[in-house]
Amino acid sequence: MTSNTNAAAPSERTQVRRIAENANYDQATLYAIIDDAYLCHVAFADDKGSHCIPTACWREADFLYIHAANPSRLAKILMRETQACVTITHLDGLVLARAAFNHSMNYRSAMIYGIFERVDGEHKAAAMTAFMDKIAPGREQEARPGNHAELAGTTVMRIALTEAACKQRSGGPNDDEEDMAQAVWAGVLPFCRQTLPPIPHELNTQAAPAYVKNWHTAN
Amino acid sequence: MTSNTNAAAPSERTQVRRIAENANYDQATLYAIIDDAYLCHVAFADDKGSHCIPTACWREADFLYIHAANPSRLAKILMRETQACVTITHLDGLVLARAAFNHSMNYRSAMIYGIFERVDGEHKAAAMTAFMDKIAPGREQEARPGNHAELAGTTVMRIALTEAACKQRSGGPNDDEEDMAQAVWAGVLPFCRQTLPPIPHELNTQAAPAYVKNWHTAN
Repeated sequence: MTSNTNAAAPSERTQVRRIAENANYDQATLYAIIDDAYLCHVAFADDKGSHCIPTACWREADFLYIHAANPSRLAKILMRETQACVTITHLDGLVLARAAFNHSMNYRSAMIYGIFERVDGEHKAAAMTAFMDKIAPGREQEARPGNHAELAGTTVMRIALTEAACKQRSGGPNDDEEDMAQAVWAGVLPFCRQTLPPIPHELNTQAAPAYVKNWHTAN
Repeated sequence: MTSNTNAAAPSERTQVRRIAENANYDQATLYAIIDDAYLCHVAFADDKGSHCIPTACWREADFLYIHAANPSRLAKILMRETQACVTITHLDGLVLARAAFNHSMNYRSAMIYGIFERVDGEHKAAAMTAFMDKIAPGREQEARPGNHAELAGTTVMRIALTEAACKQRSGGPNDDEEDMAQAVWAGVLPFCRQTLPPIPHELNTQAAPAYVKNWHTAN
Protein backbone atom coordinates (compact mmCIF):
# COMPACT_ATOMS: atom_id res chain seq x y z
CA MET A 1 0.00 0.00 0.00
CA THR A 2 1.42 3.37 -0.97
CA SER A 3 1.89 5.63 2.01
CA ASN A 4 2.77 9.23 1.50
CA THR A 5 0.89 11.12 4.14
CA ASN A 6 3.70 13.62 4.63
CA ALA A 7 3.37 15.12 1.17
CA ALA A 8 1.10 18.14 1.09
CA ALA A 9 -2.15 18.29 -0.85
CA PRO A 10 -2.02 21.17 -3.35
CA SER A 11 -5.36 22.60 -2.19
CA GLU A 12 -8.11 22.15 0.35
CA ARG A 13 -10.39 20.27 -2.04
CA THR A 14 -7.66 17.78 -3.02
CA GLN A 15 -6.88 16.87 0.62
CA VAL A 16 -7.76 13.20 1.01
CA ARG A 17 -9.46 12.65 4.35
CA ARG A 18 -10.88 9.10 4.20
CA ILE A 19 -8.12 6.46 4.60
CA ALA A 20 -5.58 9.24 4.11
CA GLU A 21 -2.65 6.79 4.21
CA ASN A 22 -3.65 5.77 0.66
CA ALA A 23 -3.28 9.33 -0.61
CA ASN A 24 -0.39 10.38 -2.78
CA TYR A 25 0.37 13.81 -4.21
CA ASP A 26 3.56 13.16 -6.14
CA GLN A 27 3.90 13.80 -9.86
CA ALA A 28 5.30 10.38 -10.83
CA THR A 29 2.27 8.60 -9.36
CA LEU A 30 -0.13 11.00 -11.08
CA TYR A 31 1.58 10.64 -14.47
CA ALA A 32 1.64 6.84 -14.21
CA ILE A 33 -2.10 6.66 -13.48
CA ILE A 34 -2.95 9.03 -16.35
CA ASP A 35 -0.58 7.39 -18.84
CA ASP A 36 -2.13 3.97 -18.16
CA ALA A 37 -5.61 5.31 -19.01
CA TYR A 38 -7.42 5.77 -22.29
CA LEU A 39 -10.45 7.25 -20.58
CA CYS A 40 -11.33 9.75 -17.88
CA HIS A 41 -14.62 10.94 -16.37
CA VAL A 42 -15.20 14.70 -16.37
CA ALA A 43 -17.60 16.21 -13.84
CA PHE A 44 -19.04 19.69 -14.23
CA ALA A 45 -22.31 21.40 -13.43
CA ASP A 46 -24.73 23.63 -15.28
CA ASP A 47 -28.30 24.77 -14.68
CA LYS A 48 -29.53 21.20 -15.31
CA GLY A 49 -27.42 19.72 -12.52
CA SER A 50 -24.13 17.84 -12.42
CA HIS A 51 -22.82 15.85 -15.37
CA CYS A 52 -20.27 13.04 -15.47
CA ILE A 53 -18.98 12.48 -19.00
CA PRO A 54 -16.59 9.69 -20.02
CA THR A 55 -14.12 10.78 -22.66
CA ALA A 56 -10.73 9.86 -24.09
CA CYS A 57 -7.72 11.57 -22.53
CA TRP A 58 -3.99 11.88 -22.95
CA ARG A 59 -1.16 13.71 -21.24
CA GLU A 60 1.46 16.12 -22.50
CA ALA A 61 3.90 17.46 -19.92
CA ASP A 62 1.88 18.81 -17.00
CA PHE A 63 -1.53 18.91 -18.73
CA LEU A 64 -4.31 16.41 -19.34
CA TYR A 65 -5.95 16.79 -22.76
CA ILE A 66 -9.41 15.89 -24.01
CA HIS A 67 -11.29 16.70 -27.20
CA ALA A 68 -14.93 16.99 -28.19
CA ALA A 69 -17.08 18.11 -31.10
CA ASN A 70 -17.70 21.86 -30.95
CA PRO A 71 -21.49 21.58 -30.44
CA SER A 72 -21.17 18.99 -27.64
CA ARG A 73 -22.26 19.87 -24.13
CA LEU A 74 -18.78 18.91 -22.92
CA ALA A 75 -17.02 21.44 -25.15
CA LYS A 76 -19.59 24.19 -24.76
CA ILE A 77 -19.81 24.12 -20.97
CA LEU A 78 -16.10 23.55 -20.24
CA MET A 79 -15.15 26.46 -22.49
CA ARG A 80 -17.18 28.80 -20.26
CA GLU A 81 -14.48 28.67 -17.55
CA THR A 82 -16.49 26.04 -15.70
CA GLN A 83 -14.97 24.37 -12.65
CA ALA A 84 -14.31 20.74 -13.54
CA CYS A 85 -13.10 17.62 -11.82
CA VAL A 86 -11.46 14.90 -13.89
CA THR A 87 -11.16 11.42 -12.42
CA ILE A 88 -9.29 8.38 -13.70
CA THR A 89 -9.74 5.06 -11.92
CA HIS A 90 -8.07 1.73 -12.55
CA LEU A 91 -9.67 -1.16 -10.68
CA ASP A 92 -7.08 -3.82 -9.86
CA GLY A 93 -8.89 -6.31 -7.66
CA LEU A 94 -11.47 -7.25 -5.05
CA VAL A 95 -10.11 -7.53 -1.51
CA LEU A 96 -11.86 -10.22 0.52
CA ALA A 97 -11.39 -9.76 4.25
CA ARG A 98 -12.54 -11.97 7.12
CA ALA A 99 -15.06 -9.34 8.24
CA ALA A 100 -17.65 -7.99 5.82
CA PHE A 101 -16.80 -4.43 6.92
CA ASN A 102 -13.12 -4.79 5.97
CA HIS A 103 -13.75 -5.80 2.38
CA SER A 104 -12.19 -3.39 -0.06
CA MET A 105 -10.96 -2.95 -3.60
CA ASN A 106 -7.48 -2.45 -4.98
CA TYR A 107 -7.36 0.56 -7.28
CA ARG A 108 -5.30 3.46 -8.58
CA SER A 109 -7.21 6.72 -8.95
CA ALA A 110 -6.39 10.31 -9.78
CA MET A 111 -8.56 13.41 -9.38
CA ILE A 112 -7.71 16.67 -11.07
CA TYR A 113 -9.50 19.92 -10.26
CA GLY A 114 -9.49 23.10 -12.28
CA ILE A 115 -10.70 24.89 -15.38
CA PHE A 116 -10.03 23.62 -18.89
CA GLU A 117 -8.43 25.97 -21.40
CA ARG A 118 -8.82 25.86 -25.18
CA VAL A 119 -5.88 24.52 -27.22
CA ASP A 120 -5.65 26.40 -30.49
CA GLY A 121 -3.29 27.46 -33.24
CA GLU A 122 -0.33 25.24 -34.13
CA HIS A 123 -0.58 23.39 -30.87
CA LYS A 124 -4.05 22.09 -31.71
CA ALA A 125 -2.99 19.76 -34.53
CA ALA A 126 0.13 18.80 -32.57
CA ALA A 127 -2.02 17.82 -29.59
CA MET A 128 -4.19 15.58 -31.76
CA THR A 129 -1.01 13.98 -33.13
CA ALA A 130 0.15 13.33 -29.57
CA PHE A 131 -3.21 11.67 -28.90
CA MET A 132 -2.78 9.39 -31.93
CA ASP A 133 0.74 8.62 -30.77
CA LYS A 134 -0.64 7.39 -27.46
CA ILE A 135 -3.28 5.21 -29.14
CA ALA A 136 -0.97 3.79 -31.81
CA PRO A 137 2.65 5.00 -31.96
CA GLY A 138 3.65 5.88 -35.53
CA ARG A 139 0.10 5.85 -36.89
CA GLU A 140 0.00 9.61 -37.37
CA GLN A 141 2.34 8.99 -40.37
CA GLU A 142 -0.09 6.48 -41.89
CA ALA A 143 -3.68 7.60 -41.37
CA ARG A 144 -5.10 10.47 -43.41
CA PRO A 145 -4.53 13.53 -41.18
CA GLY A 146 -7.39 15.72 -40.06
CA ASN A 147 -8.27 18.34 -42.66
CA HIS A 148 -9.15 21.94 -41.97
CA ALA A 149 -12.88 21.34 -41.50
CA GLU A 150 -12.36 18.34 -39.20
CA LEU A 151 -9.90 20.19 -37.03
CA ALA A 152 -12.07 23.33 -37.01
CA GLY A 153 -15.06 21.28 -35.83
CA THR A 154 -13.18 19.82 -32.90
CA THR A 155 -12.52 21.54 -29.58
CA VAL A 156 -9.24 20.49 -27.98
CA MET A 157 -9.00 21.33 -24.29
CA ARG A 158 -6.45 20.89 -21.53
CA ILE A 159 -6.39 21.11 -17.76
CA ALA A 160 -3.24 21.74 -15.71
CA LEU A 161 -2.13 18.86 -13.51
CA THR A 162 -1.31 21.18 -10.63
CA GLU A 163 -4.37 20.67 -8.42
CA ALA A 164 -4.49 16.90 -8.23
CA ALA A 165 -4.58 14.03 -5.79
CA CYS A 166 -4.09 10.31 -6.19
CA LYS A 167 -5.45 7.54 -4.04
CA GLN A 168 -4.29 3.97 -4.35
CA ARG A 169 -4.71 0.68 -2.59
CA SER A 170 -2.81 -2.54 -3.22
CA GLY A 171 -2.09 -5.71 -1.28
CA GLY A 172 -4.20 -8.06 0.80
CA PRO A 173 -6.98 -7.55 3.33
CA ASN A 174 -6.40 -5.75 6.62
CA ASP A 175 -8.43 -7.59 9.22
CA ASP A 176 -8.80 -6.80 12.87
CA GLU A 177 -7.04 -9.19 15.26
CA GLU A 178 -10.33 -10.49 16.65
CA ASP A 179 -11.51 -11.56 13.17
CA MET A 180 -8.43 -13.57 12.22
CA ALA A 181 -9.94 -16.89 13.33
CA GLN A 182 -13.05 -16.45 11.18
CA ALA A 183 -13.37 -19.56 8.98
CA VAL A 184 -13.42 -17.79 5.64
CA TRP A 185 -11.00 -17.58 2.72
CA ALA A 186 -9.13 -14.26 2.74
CA GLY A 187 -7.17 -12.71 -0.07
CA VAL A 188 -7.44 -10.80 -3.31
CA LEU A 189 -9.31 -11.54 -6.54
CA PRO A 190 -7.25 -9.49 -9.02
CA PHE A 191 -8.01 -8.36 -12.52
CA CYS A 192 -6.28 -6.39 -15.24
CA ARG A 193 -7.07 -4.79 -18.58
CA GLN A 194 -6.22 -7.51 -21.06
CA THR A 195 -5.64 -6.95 -24.76
CA LEU A 196 -7.44 -9.33 -27.13
CA PRO A 197 -6.40 -10.27 -30.69
CA PRO A 198 -6.75 -7.38 -33.19
CA ILE A 199 -9.79 -7.52 -35.49
CA PRO A 200 -8.91 -6.25 -39.00
CA HIS A 201 -11.72 -4.42 -40.81
CA GLU A 202 -13.39 -6.62 -43.43
CA LEU A 203 -12.03 -4.35 -46.17
CA ASN A 204 -8.55 -3.97 -44.67
CA THR A 205 -5.82 -4.54 -47.27
CA GLN A 206 -2.75 -3.54 -45.27
CA ALA A 207 -0.28 -5.60 -43.28
CA ALA A 208 -0.41 -5.11 -39.52
CA PRO A 209 2.08 -2.50 -38.28
CA ALA A 210 4.09 -3.05 -35.08
CA TYR A 211 1.46 -1.52 -32.78
CA VAL A 212 -1.11 -4.00 -34.11
CA LYS A 213 1.21 -7.03 -34.18
CA ASN A 214 2.37 -6.32 -30.64
CA TRP A 215 -1.09 -5.47 -29.27
CA HIS A 216 -2.03 -8.88 -27.94
CA THR A 217 1.42 -10.35 -27.35
CA ALA A 218 2.57 -7.42 -25.25
CA ASN A 219 0.44 -8.56 -22.30
CA MET B 1 -23.58 -1.02 -33.20
CA THR B 2 -26.73 -0.75 -31.12
CA SER B 3 -29.29 1.48 -32.76
CA ASN B 4 -32.35 2.49 -30.86
CA THR B 5 -33.06 6.04 -31.84
CA ASN B 6 -36.80 5.54 -31.70
CA ALA B 7 -36.89 4.99 -27.96
CA ALA B 8 -37.53 8.15 -26.01
CA ALA B 9 -35.07 9.67 -23.57
CA PRO B 10 -36.68 9.91 -20.11
CA SER B 11 -35.76 13.59 -19.71
CA GLU B 12 -34.19 16.52 -21.49
CA ARG B 13 -30.79 16.05 -19.82
CA THR B 14 -30.59 12.35 -20.73
CA GLN B 15 -31.26 13.03 -24.44
CA VAL B 16 -28.12 11.93 -26.29
CA ARG B 17 -27.33 14.42 -29.05
CA ARG B 18 -23.83 13.53 -30.25
CA ILE B 19 -23.84 10.37 -32.42
CA ALA B 20 -27.40 9.75 -31.26
CA GLU B 21 -27.59 6.44 -33.14
CA ASN B 22 -25.41 4.98 -30.35
CA ALA B 23 -27.95 5.95 -27.69
CA ASN B 24 -30.13 3.41 -25.97
CA TYR B 25 -32.78 3.97 -23.33
CA ASP B 26 -33.99 0.44 -22.69
CA GLN B 27 -33.86 -1.20 -19.29
CA ALA B 28 -32.11 -4.43 -20.32
CA THR B 29 -29.17 -2.48 -21.76
CA LEU B 30 -28.92 -0.33 -18.64
CA TYR B 31 -29.05 -3.31 -16.28
CA ALA B 32 -26.40 -5.20 -18.28
CA ILE B 33 -23.98 -2.26 -18.16
CA ILE B 34 -24.49 -1.77 -14.41
CA ASP B 35 -24.32 -5.48 -13.56
CA ASP B 36 -20.99 -5.82 -15.39
CA ALA B 37 -19.48 -3.02 -13.28
CA TYR B 38 -17.88 -3.00 -9.84
CA LEU B 39 -17.32 0.74 -9.96
CA CYS B 40 -19.14 3.92 -10.91
CA HIS B 41 -18.15 7.60 -10.94
CA VAL B 42 -20.48 9.95 -9.06
CA ALA B 43 -20.53 13.64 -10.01
CA PHE B 44 -22.00 16.31 -7.73
CA ALA B 45 -21.25 19.90 -6.90
CA ASP B 46 -20.84 21.92 -3.74
CA ASP B 47 -19.44 25.37 -2.95
CA LYS B 48 -15.93 24.10 -3.79
CA GLY B 49 -16.87 23.12 -7.34
CA SER B 50 -17.71 19.83 -9.02
CA HIS B 51 -16.50 16.49 -7.72
CA CYS B 52 -16.14 13.15 -9.48
CA ILE B 53 -15.81 10.30 -7.00
CA PRO B 54 -15.15 6.67 -7.95
CA THR B 55 -16.98 4.22 -5.73
CA ALA B 56 -18.24 0.65 -5.68
CA CYS B 57 -21.80 0.09 -6.88
CA TRP B 58 -24.38 -2.60 -7.20
CA ARG B 59 -27.96 -2.90 -8.44
CA GLU B 60 -31.15 -4.13 -6.81
CA ALA B 61 -34.28 -3.98 -8.94
CA ASP B 62 -34.56 -0.47 -10.38
CA PHE B 63 -32.00 1.21 -8.10
CA LEU B 64 -28.24 1.63 -8.12
CA TYR B 65 -26.67 1.42 -4.65
CA ILE B 66 -23.47 2.86 -3.23
CA HIS B 67 -22.10 3.15 0.29
CA ALA B 68 -19.69 5.45 2.08
CA ALA B 69 -18.45 6.22 5.56
CA ASN B 70 -20.76 8.67 7.33
CA PRO B 71 -18.17 11.49 7.58
CA SER B 72 -17.15 11.22 3.91
CA ARG B 73 -17.83 14.09 1.55
CA LEU B 74 -19.69 11.66 -0.70
CA ALA B 75 -22.17 10.67 2.00
CA LYS B 76 -22.56 14.12 3.51
CA ILE B 77 -23.20 16.00 0.27
CA LEU B 78 -25.39 13.38 -1.44
CA MET B 79 -27.63 13.16 1.64
CA ARG B 80 -28.46 16.86 1.27
CA GLU B 81 -30.74 16.11 -1.72
CA THR B 82 -27.94 17.06 -4.08
CA GLN B 83 -28.40 16.52 -7.81
CA ALA B 84 -26.03 13.76 -8.88
CA CYS B 85 -24.96 12.09 -12.07
CA VAL B 86 -23.63 8.53 -11.92
CA THR B 87 -21.66 7.20 -14.86
CA ILE B 88 -20.41 3.69 -15.59
CA THR B 89 -18.13 3.13 -18.56
CA HIS B 90 -16.70 -0.10 -19.94
CA LEU B 91 -13.98 0.43 -22.52
CA ASP B 92 -13.96 -2.42 -25.05
CA GLY B 93 -11.46 -1.39 -27.69
CA LEU B 94 -9.66 1.19 -29.80
CA VAL B 95 -11.14 1.72 -33.26
CA LEU B 96 -8.50 2.53 -35.87
CA ALA B 97 -9.95 4.16 -38.95
CA ARG B 98 -8.24 5.18 -42.19
CA ALA B 99 -8.70 8.88 -41.39
CA ALA B 100 -7.44 10.30 -38.10
CA PHE B 101 -10.79 12.05 -37.58
CA ASN B 102 -12.76 8.78 -37.74
CA HIS B 103 -10.83 7.03 -34.99
CA SER B 104 -13.06 6.03 -32.13
CA MET B 105 -13.41 3.73 -29.15
CA ASN B 106 -15.76 0.85 -28.51
CA TYR B 107 -17.50 1.23 -25.16
CA ARG B 108 -20.65 0.65 -23.15
CA SER B 109 -21.65 3.54 -20.90
CA ALA B 110 -24.59 4.42 -18.69
CA MET B 111 -25.46 7.77 -17.12
CA ILE B 112 -28.01 8.07 -14.34
CA TYR B 113 -29.34 11.41 -13.13
CA GLY B 114 -31.17 12.11 -9.92
CA ILE B 115 -30.98 12.45 -6.18
CA PHE B 116 -29.74 9.69 -3.89
CA GLU B 117 -31.93 8.57 -1.00
CA ARG B 118 -30.76 7.05 2.26
CA VAL B 119 -31.28 3.31 2.76
CA ASP B 120 -32.07 2.58 6.39
CA GLY B 121 -33.78 0.16 8.72
CA GLU B 122 -33.94 -3.53 7.80
CA HIS B 123 -33.17 -2.78 4.20
CA LYS B 124 -29.75 -1.36 5.08
CA ALA B 125 -28.16 -4.65 6.17
CA ALA B 126 -29.96 -6.47 3.36
CA ALA B 127 -28.50 -4.04 0.83
CA MET B 128 -24.98 -4.66 2.12
CA THR B 129 -25.63 -8.39 1.85
CA ALA B 130 -26.71 -7.90 -1.76
CA PHE B 131 -23.45 -6.04 -2.37
CA MET B 132 -21.44 -8.95 -0.93
CA ASP B 133 -23.46 -11.32 -3.06
CA LYS B 134 -22.40 -9.42 -6.17
CA ILE B 135 -18.71 -9.46 -5.15
CA ALA B 136 -18.64 -13.08 -4.04
CA PRO B 137 -21.85 -15.12 -4.15
CA GLY B 138 -22.37 -17.05 -0.89
CA ARG B 139 -19.70 -15.16 1.04
CA GLU B 140 -22.23 -13.35 3.23
CA GLN B 141 -22.67 -16.74 5.00
CA GLU B 142 -18.92 -17.02 5.67
CA ALA B 143 -17.47 -13.62 6.54
CA ARG B 144 -18.14 -12.05 9.93
CA PRO B 145 -21.22 -9.84 9.33
CA GLY B 146 -21.12 -6.13 10.01
CA ASN B 147 -21.86 -5.34 13.65
CA HIS B 148 -24.02 -2.52 14.93
CA ALA B 149 -21.21 0.06 15.06
CA GLU B 150 -19.91 -0.81 11.59
CA LEU B 151 -23.35 -0.61 10.05
CA ALA B 152 -24.18 2.58 11.96
CA GLY B 153 -21.00 4.22 10.67
CA THR B 154 -21.85 3.46 7.05
CA THR B 155 -24.24 5.42 4.86
CA VAL B 156 -26.00 3.27 2.27
CA MET B 157 -27.58 5.25 -0.56
CA ARG B 158 -29.56 4.48 -3.69
CA ILE B 159 -30.60 6.30 -6.83
CA ALA B 160 -33.57 5.32 -9.00
CA LEU B 161 -32.72 4.05 -12.47
CA THR B 162 -35.56 6.01 -14.03
CA GLU B 163 -33.67 8.96 -15.49
CA ALA B 164 -30.91 7.19 -17.37
CA ALA B 165 -29.35 6.92 -20.78
CA CYS B 166 -26.90 4.45 -22.27
CA LYS B 167 -24.50 5.00 -25.11
CA GLN B 168 -22.61 2.18 -26.76
CA ARG B 169 -20.36 1.59 -29.71
CA SER B 170 -19.16 -1.73 -31.08
CA GLY B 171 -17.78 -2.99 -34.38
CA GLY B 172 -15.17 -1.72 -36.79
CA PRO B 173 -14.24 1.71 -38.12
CA ASN B 174 -16.66 3.76 -40.23
CA ASP B 175 -14.56 5.47 -42.86
CA ASP B 176 -15.69 7.84 -45.55
CA GLU B 177 -15.65 6.45 -49.08
CA GLU B 178 -12.85 8.79 -50.17
CA ASP B 179 -10.55 7.47 -47.42
CA MET B 180 -10.93 3.76 -48.21
CA ALA B 181 -7.79 3.65 -50.39
CA GLN B 182 -5.58 5.11 -47.65
CA ALA B 183 -2.65 2.71 -47.14
CA VAL B 184 -3.15 2.11 -43.43
CA TRP B 185 -4.26 -0.88 -41.36
CA ALA B 186 -7.89 -0.49 -40.26
CA GLY B 187 -9.67 -2.41 -37.55
CA VAL B 188 -10.16 -2.74 -33.83
CA LEU B 189 -7.68 -3.28 -31.00
CA PRO B 190 -9.96 -4.85 -28.37
CA PHE B 191 -9.51 -5.35 -24.67
CA CYS B 192 -11.45 -6.83 -21.80
CA ARG B 193 -11.35 -6.99 -18.02
CA GLN B 194 -9.41 -10.17 -17.35
CA THR B 195 -9.38 -12.01 -14.05
CA LEU B 196 -5.98 -13.04 -12.72
CA PRO B 197 -5.20 -15.94 -10.34
CA PRO B 198 -6.51 -15.36 -6.78
CA ILE B 199 -3.89 -14.32 -4.20
CA PRO B 200 -4.60 -15.91 -0.79
CA HIS B 201 -3.67 -13.80 2.22
CA GLU B 202 -0.41 -14.97 3.82
CA LEU B 203 -2.32 -16.04 6.93
CA ASN B 204 -5.22 -17.64 5.05
CA THR B 205 -6.06 -21.10 6.44
CA GLN B 206 -9.24 -21.84 4.50
CA ALA B 207 -9.82 -23.76 1.28
CA ALA B 208 -10.91 -21.67 -1.68
CA PRO B 209 -14.71 -21.53 -2.09
CA ALA B 210 -16.33 -21.77 -5.53
CA TYR B 211 -16.22 -18.03 -6.22
CA VAL B 212 -12.44 -18.09 -5.66
CA LYS B 213 -11.78 -21.35 -7.52
CA ASN B 214 -13.83 -20.18 -10.49
CA TRP B 215 -12.46 -16.61 -10.51
CA HIS B 216 -9.69 -17.07 -13.01
CA THR B 217 -11.04 -20.05 -14.95
CA ALA B 218 -14.35 -18.35 -15.66
CA ASN B 219 -12.77 -16.09 -18.28
